[in-house]
Amino acid sequence: MITVAYQGEPGAWSEQAALEFFGAEGAPQPQATFDAVFDSVASGAAHYGCVPVENSLGGSIHRNYDLLLRHQLQVVGEVIVRVRWCLITLPGVTLGALRKVTSHWQALAQTEKSLNRLLPDAERHEVYDTAGSVKLLKESGARDTAAIASRRAAEIYDLPVIEEGLEDDPANYTRFVILAPPGPDARQASSSTGGQCKTSIVFATRNVPGSLFRSLAAFSLRDIDLCKIESRPLQGSPWEYLFYLDVVVHIDDPACRHALDHLREYATFMRVLGSYPRAKTP
Amino acid sequence: MITVAYQGEPGAWSEQAALEFFGAEGAPQPQATFDAVFDSVASGAAHYGCVPVENSLGGSIHRNYDLLLRHQLQVVGEVIVRVRWCLITLPGVTLGALRKVTSHWQALAQTEKSLNRLLPDAERHEVYDTAGSVKLLKESGARDTAAIASRRAAEIYDLPVIEEGLEDDPANYTRFVILAPPGPDARQASSSTGGQCKTSIVFATRNVPGSLFRSLAAFSLRDIDLCKIESRPLQGSPWEYLFYLDVVVHIDDPACRHALDHLREYATFMRVLGSYPRAKTP
Repeated sequence: MITVAYQGEPGAWSEQAALEFFGAEGAPQPQATFDAVFDSVASGAAHYGCVPVENSLGGSIHRNYDLLLRHQLQVVGEVIVRVRWCLITLPGVTLGALRKVTSHWQALAQTEKSLNRLLPDAERHEVYDTAGSVKLLKESGARDTAAIASRRAAEIYDLPVIEEGLEDDPANYTRFVILAPPGPDARQASSSTGGQCKTSIVFATRNVPGSLFRSLAAFSLRDIDLCKIESRPLQGSPWEYLFYLDVVVHIDDPACRHALDHLREYATFMRVLGSYPRAKTP
Repeated sequence: MITVAYQGEPGAWSEQAALEFFGAEGAPQPQATFDAVFDSVASGAAHYGCVPVENSLGGSIHRNYDLLLRHQLQVVGEVIVRVRWCLITLPGVTLGALRKVTSHWQALAQTEKSLNRLLPDAERHEVYDTAGSVKLLKESGARDTAAIASRRAAEIYDLPVIEEGLEDDPANYTRFVILAPPGPDARQASSSTGGQCKTSIVFATRNVPGSLFRSLAAFSLRDIDLCKIESRPLQGSPWEYLFYLDVVVHIDDPACRHALDHLREYATFMRVLGSYPRAKTP
């Protein structure tokens, strides 16, 4: 079996992403925090990690961008999961009895309009995890509270789904990355064969006018498509930034190698986080 | 008096930012949520709003970027506040008695290393507001819990500070923007006279290779400095983005007008959020 650390309780989307990526070979291992997922892979306690980096409605999960930088792991794959939110209660509870809705803040953000329509007066309560909100609900026995999580989480905790498809936009997808220890990886080696690939990079530049523009030129001048840019604060240098780029090219492609050499001319720091097959949006 | 809506309880950094910006004329009005701050300004219940958009350690406050887009308000100023975090308890409580630390997630993130050193085993508990965590602590009477907030919040709720300067990095600043209703504003009119100015823009482009690069060219080719870029998901179009730019130029500068005309050639959507005097980092 391939052990895969993920954040959350059984029933979390991260667990589902791990199962979709590794199939029957995958053995997901729940962890309390994203930090613990990275630590598990770094220490060898798990073969791989699976963490969300971006949701198509809520945006990036910035914590995991920060952790990618802090750890010396590599990204060896990505997987995109369709997110469908359910309103879950104790047996026999109806919508009218609800005074409180509990879930992870990303789930609350992604269902904001539905909640304003269905439960305008219910208090929103943030907890650490969506599947965890179902676990806590079951333990608490609260008949005035609903949790927002996946259908799978409802089934695991044997609670009814009273509304399904709460996401404000059906185009609700979360993109996860697969983390591996540094060094050769079977999945990475296979990634240069066939299909589109992505390379993920993080860099900083001198704080001079035009530096981001010149950095992007390294890719644009070589017709390499940039599919994602994320900025994060550079610690210790207020109003300076680290930039995370995903570019649609494999690192072994000569154009990518030239672009990275070009970027190094401007960058005060640069690291390739990984190069891996591009996932399809289901 | 000039009424200024802000999110949080008295003692919040947003209240302090409002007082620093408006001085003795300012009358801060607490609101429960960022949404309520925007609503207050839109409805005329407050003359201005003051919301954080970015912290130099924790990064952007993405919710407020989303709300800037959703509302038709304008940005007429910015203010940067030095953030210094205190560990606040009930009277007589010592470090050894603490089992729980409660605050807003940004405060917990900004004090992560200090907390891991001082209180490695204490549970972290997220609440809606830093000053609110002090209010809740006082109400609860919990002698095993500490709140993280400003010294001013400790003074308002008459509780002792047992550790000060918890921020992991002393270069801890939060940047706030001042919101006004659309139309002419006294502060905006004065902003083109003397000193550096910033213009904040949000736009989307067609999802074709090189589109962000070409968009930034509109500014770089005219030597306009980009000081901040933030991407947010374009709702309904997975893996497409809105880009928020801050450029160091006043909108009445011919170079800025030309750059915006140039950007409009590529943009599928563009809005100027405001043009205002650049704040100094204290």
